[in-house]
Amino acid sequence: MEVINDLLGYDGLKIVQNPEMFSFSIDSMILGYFATINKKMNNIVDFCTGNAPIPLYLTLRTKAHITGIEIQKKVYELGVKSVKMNNKDNQITLLNEDLKGVSSRIKEKVDLITCNPPFFKLNESSNINKSEYKTIARHEVKITLEECVYEASKLLSTGGYFAMVHRPDRLAEILEVMKKYKLEPKRLQFIYPKIDSEPNHILIECVKDGNPGLKVLKPLIVYENGVWSKEILKIYNLKEE
Amino acid sequence: MEVINDLLGYDGLKIVQNPEMFSFSIDSMILGYFATINKKMNNIVDFCTGNAPIPLYLTLRTKAHITGIEIQKKVYELGVKSVKMNNKDNQITLLNEDLKGVSSRIKEKVDLITCNPPFFKLNESSNINKSEYKTIARHEVKITLEECVYEASKLLSTGGYFAMVHRPDRLAEILEVMKKYKLEPKRLQFIYPKIDSEPNHILIECVKDGNPGLKVLKPLIVYENGVWSKEILKIYNLKEE
Repeated sequence: MEVINDLLGYDGLKIVQNPEMFSFSIDSMILGYFATINKKMNNIVDFCTGNAPIPLYLTLRTKAHITGIEIQKKVYELGVKSVKMNNKDNQITLLNEDLKGVSSRIKEKVDLITCNPPFFKLNESSNINKSEYKTIARHEVKITLEECVYEASKLLSTGGYFAMVHRPDRLAEILEVMKKYKLEPKRLQFIYPKIDSEPNHILIECVKDGNPGLKVLKPLIVYENGVWSKEILKIYNLKEE
Repeated sequence: MEVINDLLGYDGLKIVQNPEMFSFSIDSMILGYFATINKKMNNIVDFCTGNAPIPLYLTLRTKAHITGIEIQKKVYELGVKSVKMNNKDNQITLLNEDLKGVSSRIKEKVDLITCNPPFFKLNESSNINKSEYKTIARHEVKITLEECVYEASKLLSTGGYFAMVHRPDRLAEILEVMKKYKLEPKRLQFIYPKIDSEPNHILIECVKDGNPGLKVLKPLIVYENGVWSKEILKIYNLKEE
């Protein structure tokens, strides 16, 4: 069953969802807000784009062209509907493709890649979801962390950015793999659901062939006194530039 | 000029300091609180012990024997005075030795190593302190991160712990070096001076030959509304077990 939801906290962008299949989450918005954007950027690619929340969100921040890549046909189709509904066909192109090998198919150099990948290793089987759509979105069935990072590194121009949301328990591996593929970690932020809880997500951004020097940012706290924090409300209510 | 200060927020342990030479900082107390302690531990070693704040603090948490290693003779002598003044000679042994090669000199296997090392690389010359004592304590003049981790790995028994305080900008390198020497990062905590500031320290603990799986803990916030947070007061007011 498809539903049309607001992407933002006001009557702005819409997104087509199918809750049994795939629903965008706040992670995507936070990543869209976190990624470095500058006026020199022409080409942005969003890996594992799902129903395209990140490309849609990024249209609020940039005029650059955004390509979203999604392997699952039915999830991709939700994205296509969402892009059309918002009249963003000129700025966003969605591709129903396997991410593996994408760096040899896309010929233009890319300035920024965003990625909200499957978070769980395949052997973390206790978390396998009943829906195949959700399993593919959340577990490394079709693509692994290392494969995402490899493709990103190949696609990015020198000085290009790779921004990813992921889980803190894989931080050591993430940093290792990024360094292996010459994506130098530059900014890292921890997302804590509450001020006294462990972080459940990290935001990390690298620069292709960048100089070493990691900056850890202030904590991003999602709930304060039981309601969304000011920072989350700012992300959620972002207006077009 | 030597002064005698309280180590804690009440009339308990004392520490002998020379402000021109070396003063212990809150980092040491936080590391003493953060490190895993259990009743099976017999041997604890504190690297870069300075005037021995960490060994003294750890006596509040354990009956295990603690060896502190300090390369600078005059700083070591402050530590010796502090240990005597607190009647902890039976539990704490201080050695005025170079950390390099210590793993071939200490023969017993060690259960826990704590380390508040020099934070800055030697080429970060803008931060070189005017006092040679402080320069050696804060910059990698006599020992590097990798050398500390190497010595720790050699000294620890399988399953032994290595707990360190360091700076967030060196996180990627820290994780890399730890993995290189089979110290598996298990617990990581960021210390934020305030809720809306970037972290200035990290606490990290590894297990020798441990299984992968890093847990990032809740944020440790030092100041709340301009005064020490409850957690810092708890650390600072810790009473003997």
